[in-house]
Amino acid sequence: MSFELTKEFLELLNSAIQKKDTLWMKKNLFILHHADIAAIINELEFENYSYIYSLISEEIKPNVLVELDKDIRDNIIRTFSTSEIAEQLEYMDSDDAADFLIGFSKEKVEEIIGKIKNIETAEDIVDLLKYAPNTAGGLMQKEFIQAKAEWPVNKCVVELRKQAEQVEKIFTIYVVDEKNKLIGYLSLKSLLVADPKTKISKLYQSQNIISVKISDDKEDVARVMEKYDLVSVPVIDIQNKLVGRITIDDIVDVIKDEAEKDFQLASGISENIESSDGVWRISRARIPWLLIGLLGGVFGAQVISLFEGGISDVPQLAFFIPLITAMGGNVGVQSSAIVVQSLARGNDQFDSILKKLQKEALVSIINGLLLSIIIYGISFFFHSNTLGLVVSISLLTVIISSAIFGTLIPLLLDKYKIDPALATGPFITTLNDVLGLFIYLTIGVVTYGI
Amino acid sequence: MSFELTKEFLELLNSAIQKKDTLWMKKNLFILHHADIAAIINELEFENYSYIYSLISEEIKPNVLVELDKDIRDNIIRTFSTSEIAEQLEYMDSDDAADFLIGFSKEKVEEIIGKIKNIETAEDIVDLLKYAPNTAGGLMQKEFIQAKAEWPVNKCVVELRKQAEQVEKIFTIYVVDEKNKLIGYLSLKSLLVADPKTKISKLYQSQNIISVKISDDKEDVARVMEKYDLVSVPVIDIQNKLVGRITIDDIVDVIKDEAEKDFQLASGISENIESSDGVWRISRARIPWLLIGLLGGVFGAQVISLFEGGISDVPQLAFFIPLITAMGGNVGVQSSAIVVQSLARGNDQFDSILKKLQKEALVSIINGLLLSIIIYGISFFFHSNTLGLVVSISLLTVIISSAIFGTLIPLLLDKYKIDPALATGPFITTLNDVLGLFIYLTIGVVTYGI
Repeated sequence: MSFELTKEFLELLNSAIQKKDTLWMKKNLFILHHADIAAIINELEFENYSYIYSLISEEIKPNVLVELDKDIRDNIIRTFSTSEIAEQLEYMDSDDAADFLIGFSKEKVEEIIGKIKNIETAEDIVDLLKYAPNTAGGLMQKEFIQAKAEWPVNKCVVELRKQAEQVEKIFTIYVVDEKNKLIGYLSLKSLLVADPKTKISKLYQSQNIISVKISDDKEDVARVMEKYDLVSVPVIDIQNKLVGRITIDDIVDVIKDEAEKDFQLASGISENIESSDGVWRISRARIPWLLIGLLGGVFGAQVISLFEGGISDVPQLAFFIPLITAMGGNVGVQSSAIVVQSLARGNDQFDSILKKLQKEALVSIINGLLLSIIIYGISFFFHSNTLGLVVSISLLTVIISSAIFGTLIPLLLDKYKIDPALATGPFITTLNDVLGLFIYLTIGVVTYGI
Repeated sequence: MSFELTKEFLELLNSAIQKKDTLWMKKNLFILHHADIAAIINELEFENYSYIYSLISEEIKPNVLVELDKDIRDNIIRTFSTSEIAEQLEYMDSDDAADFLIGFSKEKVEEIIGKIKNIETAEDIVDLLKYAPNTAGGLMQKEFIQAKAEWPVNKCVVELRKQAEQVEKIFTIYVVDEKNKLIGYLSLKSLLVADPKTKISKLYQSQNIISVKISDDKEDVARVMEKYDLVSVPVIDIQNKLVGRITIDDIVDVIKDEAEKDFQLASGISENIESSDGVWRISRARIPWLLIGLLGGVFGAQVISLFEGGISDVPQLAFFIPLITAMGGNVGVQSSAIVVQSLARGNDQFDSILKKLQKEALVSIINGLLLSIIIYGISFFFHSNTLGLVVSISLLTVIISSAIFGTLIPLLLDKYKIDPALATGPFITTLNDVLGLFIYLTIGVVTYGI
């Protein structure tokens, strides 16, 4: 079972808040999972959510805080003193605590860290703040369980009990040598099943130890965890020393964000926005793409104006302008999308560009021929044989050229370390529009002999 | 560290295969993680990969098999007898085994299951095959660890040792009552830390037990696991009896597939294809969208033909046709993309449709005004005041109407249980093209008084 937030629940809660009915809240709200409490607070008005937040028990507060929407969290924190913030950080996992501090000024961060009572916690956070947020270092947490190879199982269990208090979720015990270098791992299961006197060195797994380097890109970490079906991965520094671990819940966010970013770029939205963001922010995220589209339209107008005489002689030529531009755009987006996805998955690195182009050209010839035959029939029936010929030959040419550009451009962008997903959006549509118009009108003017 | 597949490695491997140098393979290939071995086999030619596969040790074979590309896996299985397949299934997790059987005919499945030696394994697989692949039942595995509340810790550890042999990864121990109903959970950590004589009933967590129902949609399971940051979730039947568990690695695939599907739909690709698929399959996946685009183009041609007289009098009107259609398409895709994403995330359920529409209308008025002013300037400069007025007023109208349609259509599709992502692709672009043309040419003809 999981809690489903309903309109009715929100209404009951709002009336409980008005009546200051803390008994109702205790029975119905505060018994919930912290993720649900956060989801509920996200739906409340300011005066209500700060009131509710103040009633949450101290141990749960940091968990709720981490899950809140950014703007709501910022509003709540604004009412805190630096020592209150420091107190909340002590309860958080080190990676959440470090992420939490990212929005603050350098001076404020120093002040907050200075007020953290547990020195080790403070040191862990300071250490994590050194790493760029999009690297393994920026994702990792300092809470993990490690054991020395020479320990027997019973000593290991005793040590683990000490360490385990710090670590919320244990998946794997990392085994290190005397220099703290990662040499293997051990599942809790094998510890549970083993004889207490066996040495760890006889139990641990030393083959195929999967780890990531502290400077690895977060998308590479995601790929590694996905490939090997890992729930946590150890992070090592350049000397192979174990410095942290990354858990799958953080990687799920990376995978989702990456996929959403590609989708938004393909849809012509340049920043990671949500539908709950403000009107100005949404406008700003969209305008760059619309300007590209506008510029493309202006170029398109210039191309058509070159053929003004032709169009005033044969106005039917204008009829199929939208068809040609739309098809060029659609084919270009289809071809680029598949390249972008295979680049994102990191596969196909062994197919040469030439092989990819050949394949796309072949697909576009098949689809182009089919569509050209259909459009020839339609325009012959409604208009004339000549127009049918012009439109169908142009369509075939435009489909093939759009497929080739759609394949080449993301590959080129990727080669120059630019995000290839940029190519799937209005950019490629616009380019293919202008190109398609030129092809179509040239063929038209030549065929009609204008 | 993780293995990086290089061209050089593949060349060395191919030459080792030709020389039948099994020593090289033992030293360099078979020491790798099964996911890497599968990734390498995926890059080989048929005769080579079946040779390599035959050399893999028996315990590793099923792990490799599960990770292979579908076509390669099918080719390898084709050479197997039913008892050989049954043997491989015995080594797999029950969910992988059930998925594995999906492609086979009913008779073949019965034959294979009849040859599985372990009766419990066979029963588990038969049970899992009953559930639709897109439900919690279709995703779950039968391997999980359960404990009774009345057991003391030491009895629990003994029982776990028995059960643990079957279960590859243990995350959580599920606590059930005498009727097998799920009443709570226990972390391995708490078992490790507890006194051996304590009863489980005193240790286990009974509040906020998150579970999913066997009939829940897989995307709902993904949302639950994401929301509560779970690595595994118990699955219960309608009587609340514990019947299985779902692990995060399977859910990562669900999340990725869902995001990729949305991206592909938005890009006009109707099936889940990869760039390594064959030419015919890629063609087929794309043609439906292209046909929609073609149909839209034909409608567009019909709309323009209504204004044939106007265009032959004022051919400049044709210049801005691509600009109007492109902008309508871009705005429509932007608006629909954000709706699709918020629906996929499952948030914003409390915003009314009216509120969403108001916001999109506002955004489109801001962006539309800005773009209209720019295009008025450009078309006034290059052409005339009248054309500038026609184009800018049309553009504003088209941007606003496209934003409204772009918002409404995915919401409507969702209401009628159709995948709203359908709306972000060529569908909305095509609709807005036709609508935009009509608006533009009507305004043009009226303004010029043709």
